[in-house]
Amino acid sequence: MPTTLLRVSCPDRVGLLALISKFAADHGGNLREVHQFTDLEENWFCARMEIDTQTLTCGLEALRSAFQPLGRELTAEWSIRPAELKPRVVLMVSKLGHCLADLLWRWRSGELAFEIPCVISNHETLRELVEREGLKFHHIPVEQDSKAAAFDRMEQIWTEDAADLVVLARYMQVVPSEFCSRWSGKIMNIHHSFLPSFVGANPYRRAYQRGVKLIGATCHYATADLDEGPIIEQEVTRVEHFHTENDLLRLGRDCERLALARGLRYHLADRVFVHGNRTTVFRD
Amino acid sequence: MPTTLLRVSCPDRVGLLALISKFAADHGGNLREVHQFTDLEENWFCARMEIDTQTLTCGLEALRSAFQPLGRELTAEWSIRPAELKPRVVLMVSKLGHCLADLLWRWRSGELAFEIPCVISNHETLRELVEREGLKFHHIPVEQDSKAAAFDRMEQIWTEDAADLVVLARYMQVVPSEFCSRWSGKIMNIHHSFLPSFVGANPYRRAYQRGVKLIGATCHYATADLDEGPIIEQEVTRVEHFHTENDLLRLGRDCERLALARGLRYHLADRVFVHGNRTTVFRD
Amino acid sequence: MPTTLLRVSCPDRVGLLALISKFAADHGGNLREVHQFTDLEENWFCARMEIDTQTLTCGLEALRSAFQPLGRELTAEWSIRPAELKPRVVLMVSKLGHCLADLLWRWRSGELAFEIPCVISNHETLRELVEREGLKFHHIPVEQDSKAAAFDRMEQIWTEDAADLVVLARYMQVVPSEFCSRWSGKIMNIHHSFLPSFVGANPYRRAYQRGVKLIGATCHYATADLDEGPIIEQEVTRVEHFHTENDLLRLGRDCERLALARGLRYHLADRVFVHGNRTTVFRD
Amino acid sequence: MPTTLLRVSCPDRVGLLALISKFAADHGGNLREVHQFTDLEENWFCARMEIDTQTLTCGLEALRSAFQPLGRELTAEWSIRPAELKPRVVLMVSKLGHCLADLLWRWRSGELAFEIPCVISNHETLRELVEREGLKFHHIPVEQDSKAAAFDRMEQIWTEDAADLVVLARYMQVVPSEFCSRWSGKIMNIHHSFLPSFVGANPYRRAYQRGVKLIGATCHYATADLDEGPIIEQEVTRVEHFHTENDLLRLGRDCERLALARGLRYHLADRVFVHGNRTTVFRD
Repeated sequence: MPTTLLRVSCPDRVGLLALISKFAADHGGNLREVHQFTDLEENWFCARMEIDTQTLTCGLEALRSAFQPLGRELTAEWSIRPAELKPRVVLMVSKLGHCLADLLWRWRSGELAFEIPCVISNHETLRELVEREGLKFHHIPVEQDSKAAAFDRMEQIWTEDAADLVVLARYMQVVPSEFCSRWSGKIMNIHHSFLPSFVGANPYRRAYQRGVKLIGATCHYATADLDEGPIIEQEVTRVEHFHTENDLLRLGRDCERLALARGLRYHLADRVFVHGNRTTVFRD
Repeated sequence: MPTTLLRVSCPDRVGLLALISKFAADHGGNLREVHQFTDLEENWFCARMEIDTQTLTCGLEALRSAFQPLGRELTAEWSIRPAELKPRVVLMVSKLGHCLADLLWRWRSGELAFEIPCVISNHETLRELVEREGLKFHHIPVEQDSKAAAFDRMEQIWTEDAADLVVLARYMQVVPSEFCSRWSGKIMNIHHSFLPSFVGANPYRRAYQRGVKLIGATCHYATADLDEGPIIEQEVTRVEHFHTENDLLRLGRDCERLALARGLRYHLADRVFVHGNRTTVFRD
Repeated sequence: MPTTLLRVSCPDRVGLLALISKFAADHGGNLREVHQFTDLEENWFCARMEIDTQTLTCGLEALRSAFQPLGRELTAEWSIRPAELKPRVVLMVSKLGHCLADLLWRWRSGELAFEIPCVISNHETLRELVEREGLKFHHIPVEQDSKAAAFDRMEQIWTEDAADLVVLARYMQVVPSEFCSRWSGKIMNIHHSFLPSFVGANPYRRAYQRGVKLIGATCHYATADLDEGPIIEQEVTRVEHFHTENDLLRLGRDCERLALARGLRYHLADRVFVHGNRTTVFRD
Repeated sequence: MPTTLLRVSCPDRVGLLALISKFAADHGGNLREVHQFTDLEENWFCARMEIDTQTLTCGLEALRSAFQPLGRELTAEWSIRPAELKPRVVLMVSKLGHCLADLLWRWRSGELAFEIPCVISNHETLRELVEREGLKFHHIPVEQDSKAAAFDRMEQIWTEDAADLVVLARYMQVVPSEFCSRWSGKIMNIHHSFLPSFVGANPYRRAYQRGVKLIGATCHYATADLDEGPIIEQEVTRVEHFHTENDLLRLGRDCERLALARGLRYHLADRVFVHGNRTTVFRD
């Protein structure tokens, strides 16, 4: 059934939910799903509504126009869009294909609804996996002395391909901070540890050495500070003394796949709100 | 901060959330927390709102009166009460004290807010554990030939003590179905299996024999059908081949304690809605 | 490093572990990993040893010959094989490809070490997914009136392809009991519920209707009794009131994939022992 | 049934398990449970055996004497003791009683087998909880300028009470490093975070601020480096955007209780081996 997504976040005040739900009702909109959360510490309100499009008494553009005065009054960040519109997601990978293969399956089977304008990698390793799906594959090596140029080229592709989101699916290059800033909230990373444990390189090696009894993975938005961006989803699994570092890598792969797939799912459906360095996630 | 709890459940229709949140706003009520869920299959709406009492422009009784016409119009089941009001909970136990001890600690430490008018048991075993907390303990044996009389007496106590809820905290007698019906939604049980697996007696023995790799516990409302009532909360834990039946009992105890404590917590704060045989639980 | 796997199961008696580990030591075998378990209720012993092949003072056949008298004396079921030998696994599927795709990825990436002589399906749906991996795909429809013939043909393929194991990766036909008996311990199934809950058809629908708060999947050996065979691995995930039956299907898929992949992994490495209807699983 | 515990750890070499299990067999010892692990990276072997005492052909002292030459030859750290011997555990607390109450219940019910010579606290808060169990309670305030003297006095009590283990059950003072060194492997701490995340003070506040989606607790041996000691057990639980810092404290309490109770259980039964900064834990 066609669905219209309404998202609002703004400073909290009395009657906010009444105002917004009245807005939907005034346009005939039957609410299929409503999520609302007020961060009392931050005095910050956010809401997400799924409206049955067929009950709406006006079209999308008219609805947006109608919301504008309210949005302005509330100094809100807001959006209204058809749920059916599939975001365009550029996937970035290096040599490890487990996250990529998992996303491709979820994409192909329709479990996750998005478009893949292309896949970019600093290696050739995964080309076949991508091209057999009929997808474009760009090999853009990243050398120490030409890193800036490589990222310029990638950003050009992101832009030309009208990417709504860039997913670092075990892309093993640090994205320079200026790109993170320009694409704020639009670069999603999967880090192979349970952050904030083991920020940076070789988290499984360090987890092994520290002798932790659970390992994990973290899906977060990339920001200028490495591995410090807002966390969207995390997953953990138990490990024991008999697990070697290689076992951690293996067990961790399943955590990475799950955390990334769920984080991406929430993002695609406009279920993630970022405020400061924390996220509100209306899971489904 | 004083809080007023508003709960509503009724058939769904357009504009419901707007109506109810407008009701709160019209009385100055600042919403501290809102939960809403529409079961689209059942066309059933339920909502729970925490209103900052100090912002309300009228008292509790006036608020209730004001809601009555709306409640009637919506053919809603609803309630408005101060969150500070502590429900009265009668605890029922047999010989095993782990759930009782856990609840007593959470009660004593203030983690769970409720009154305990008394504890009832068909054995003397746990008397000291109860009385040293300054609580009343009733020993009411249940013999095969006087079971009805015993339950009559217990129901009398429940009534005299104005119990809002009866918790079967590993009470090993089946509550006769007529009592379950009369106290519908007011008898909470912890069953020592992951329902619907192992309904009835000796679930750990049967879990062991079946060779399951996870065991669990289920907190549910007691109904006339044994172990078939609406599920509020479940908890599981992994077991392995080296775990004997006694190990399952031990590991299961922690599941039971957690599932019961959480289920009770949700119930005490009016976070559980029952519709048919399913529950909506607005967790905190 | 080349490894030799020694597996023994037999009635328990004093000195058994000493005997078997002495056997390894007498042939120079350095033990890289040892698992041992005695089921005291059943008086049943089982052990699995990974021996560094390069330290052995004799070849595989000589080692087997040397073990024979001991094996006979202990009335043991035992095997000695190179760990590098990849079992041959026939995959059986219907229309749902999530388990198949997951296994193909783990196979292709080398995470799971096995050969796939062919994939068999009662539908054409997944042919491309299989053939693009360079694997053989057999479409064998199963109609009500020719079911026996269809299974005869499939068994013929299993035999001709020298299958060590048949994996029902969401194969939606019940394997007739005589085949289960003939291939005892060699047919692995993934059932889409947390057994023994929801044996049989439509487990997600029934889980939804029962209102459980956790759903799961079970990897087990198929036996003549539907969904009653020895359990190898289970996985669960939390669900809430807002999850529809379709959501359960989606969330359950990840449970199914994980439980099946892990169960298969344990089986491939000779880590699963069946005694009666229970399994001993020496996880890695 | 009376059980004798044999523990051995030493550098690995061929035939070690055969030697040790032969030792048990030579003295008639029926092995009820055997655990063995070789850390191949460290070339380190450890084993734990539960021997049926009634099958042994000699007494405890004779068994120990008999093992001595072998132990010396292997340069092993080893012990042989009756499983029935209850370790003496001093509990240290501050104001928060949830871990203490949990341990007292497990102790009282016999789930955990240990003696409590006394409870020590830097506050009076928990005196009643302790004394009503018939246990000794020492109030030893710790002021900044007399910290050394306070710990001297506590160490004197540990020694006089012949403590085998000191458990910091949310004891909110840092144990000076010289005490940690002297009592190496004998001071167990529960840290209220998922280490190595949030080492040090206020972990829940920091977890809230970082916006993690899972919080946890860590049971570890205290060493001179704060929160860096060998990890015995960890537990985690999911949190969401709607959980305040106070909610994290509440949810974390259950993690703390479980991780501490399990860690203590493993230690009491000689199931924990420390090598370097990692532990081998033969769980039950």
